[in-house]
Amino acid sequence: MFHEVKQNKQPMKKAAVGIDIGGTNTILGIVDQKGNCLFEKEIFTDSGKGIVEYLHHLSDIIEEGKILIKDEYKIEGIGIGAPNGNTKTGNIEFAPNLPWKGVLPLVEEFRKIRVEPVILANDANAAAIGEMIYGGAKGMKDFLVITIGTGLGSGFVSNGRLITGHDGLAGELGHINVYRNGRLCNCGRRGCLETYVSAVGIKKTLHQLFRNYSTQSELRSVSFKDLDSRMITEAAMKGDKLAQLAFDYTGMVLGRKLSDVVALTSPRAIFVLGGVANAGDLIISPTKTSMEDNMMKVFSDKVEILPSFLNNNPAVLGSSALVWDKNFFQE
Amino acid sequence: MFHEVKQNKQPMKKAAVGIDIGGTNTILGIVDQKGNCLFEKEIFTDSGKGIVEYLHHLSDIIEEGKILIKDEYKIEGIGIGAPNGNTKTGNIEFAPNLPWKGVLPLVEEFRKIRVEPVILANDANAAAIGEMIYGGAKGMKDFLVITIGTGLGSGFVSNGRLITGHDGLAGELGHINVYRNGRLCNCGRRGCLETYVSAVGIKKTLHQLFRNYSTQSELRSVSFKDLDSRMITEAAMKGDKLAQLAFDYTGMVLGRKLSDVVALTSPRAIFVLGGVANAGDLIISPTKTSMEDNMMKVFSDKVEILPSFLNNNPAVLGSSALVWDKNFFQE
Repeated sequence: MFHEVKQNKQPMKKAAVGIDIGGTNTILGIVDQKGNCLFEKEIFTDSGKGIVEYLHHLSDIIEEGKILIKDEYKIEGIGIGAPNGNTKTGNIEFAPNLPWKGVLPLVEEFRKIRVEPVILANDANAAAIGEMIYGGAKGMKDFLVITIGTGLGSGFVSNGRLITGHDGLAGELGHINVYRNGRLCNCGRRGCLETYVSAVGIKKTLHQLFRNYSTQSELRSVSFKDLDSRMITEAAMKGDKLAQLAFDYTGMVLGRKLSDVVALTSPRAIFVLGGVANAGDLIISPTKTSMEDNMMKVFSDKVEILPSFLNNNPAVLGSSALVWDKNFFQE
Repeated sequence: MFHEVKQNKQPMKKAAVGIDIGGTNTILGIVDQKGNCLFEKEIFTDSGKGIVEYLHHLSDIIEEGKILIKDEYKIEGIGIGAPNGNTKTGNIEFAPNLPWKGVLPLVEEFRKIRVEPVILANDANAAAIGEMIYGGAKGMKDFLVITIGTGLGSGFVSNGRLITGHDGLAGELGHINVYRNGRLCNCGRRGCLETYVSAVGIKKTLHQLFRNYSTQSELRSVSFKDLDSRMITEAAMKGDKLAQLAFDYTGMVLGRKLSDVVALTSPRAIFVLGGVANAGDLIISPTKTSMEDNMMKVFSDKVEILPSFLNNNPAVLGSSALVWDKNFFQE
């Protein structure tokens, strides 16, 4: 009898939990191997109760999800994307925008609660793995993902594996230098790429343009604090010259640095995602032009800049992809 | 009888051929797995007779070497390091300093003559593999080798594998930009790192210092054409202030760019070799200071800059190491 029941049952399908920890919200999803999201829930990252409570809360949501997806799926692992998440140590290290300060042993703590394998990566690295597993980088072994949001993050893949560096902290494209004595960066130095190419960067650029030009712009009546990159995108789309110029300048700076990045790592494609990247061609077109203008001849017209294919749900897809990327379990 | 003879024989030891193709000379060596050079010979690269003759000449030298090392060793493969050597295609592509122009199918041609596996890489990439197999990077999975000679070459290793990029052309550290509208580069653009950090670069810097300062220097009486980097090294060691300043400036420029490179790839160590690097602390010390001054805090005091451990014979060791690096045979 027992054997008969077993045989009637379908073999269990595989699913992965993806958790994206952001400064304000944490999104948890359960995703199948094709990238279909079977379950998703969002909570506030800062519950005010500390990390252990927070992880128990996430664990409860996983159980909630498991009831919903029934016995059809087996959870193969839990992938977590977080700012300053270090794959090699399993710690979140000195993340300025998260409620927990210093070094947080996230994987160690979560393993006390969950039986599944837990893999942590920084959010941009998780996005790169997501792009490779579900997105536009399927079958690619050398590519780059750039997240242009509040800051500028990056994930480099070479030979089909993430470049993490010896300490797990590689991929800080946002902190290469553009101008000596340039804009002050949160990292304490001056002139980092992130201070030009990010939501905050483009706001600063627009205000610089306000000072340098007398051209009219509807955004002149918005305070710096109230201004956000989506408003700049919308104004540019409606023909606002200074908003368009702000995108052109941002793309010019990014393109110059990408020509250097191509010389070092020669990616087949560069994928962009995040708030500023959602402006599409407004940012991609000047970036591409500037990159080609500055490119070493052997790399000319070889590298595409593309919007991420994860744009419908990069947070959950990126982090869940960590589970399918076997390379993380190696070594 | 036959069996008895075989049993009395020692099992054959393994050896690899390493060939380094330079603009003037080609060096061929046979090396055991520990990096001991068993045989070595140097010929002119430009025999004036074309590539097929040249490869037959190299093949004859291999046979000459095989007689010398007797039956004790079996040749496992032939590694070749050459400027613009592309591992993925097996071609030497548009190498400005070699006698053959355009795209040269070196591996294909050599395989018509030899039975052993043939592996080609650019010279700096071969040096990186050499450093990993025989040198200071043994056991390291993330590091960087910089060759500072006539030009500036680099080989990046990440996760224990060379970063070649999708087209085999990655690692062009010499061609990232230092100054917009800077010095004219052989690549046709301006301000490339190689125009500052190379044997030619340091000569240009010294002549710039001659113009900007009235300080005495014995090198003022040497023409630009006759000047070479070894003379600058010797003068600096004897206390020549402007020669020392030329090294300081070169190191400052290199260190700034290395701080960016560390942010992207987070290597455990950076190895330097080649003519200018032979100046030792004269170049390493200002490079290290400048790199640390510009480094993102999380990477501070983590990355060593070291002279290459292959300095006695980088050309032959680097190229022969390609044979032992199994990753080249994968995919």
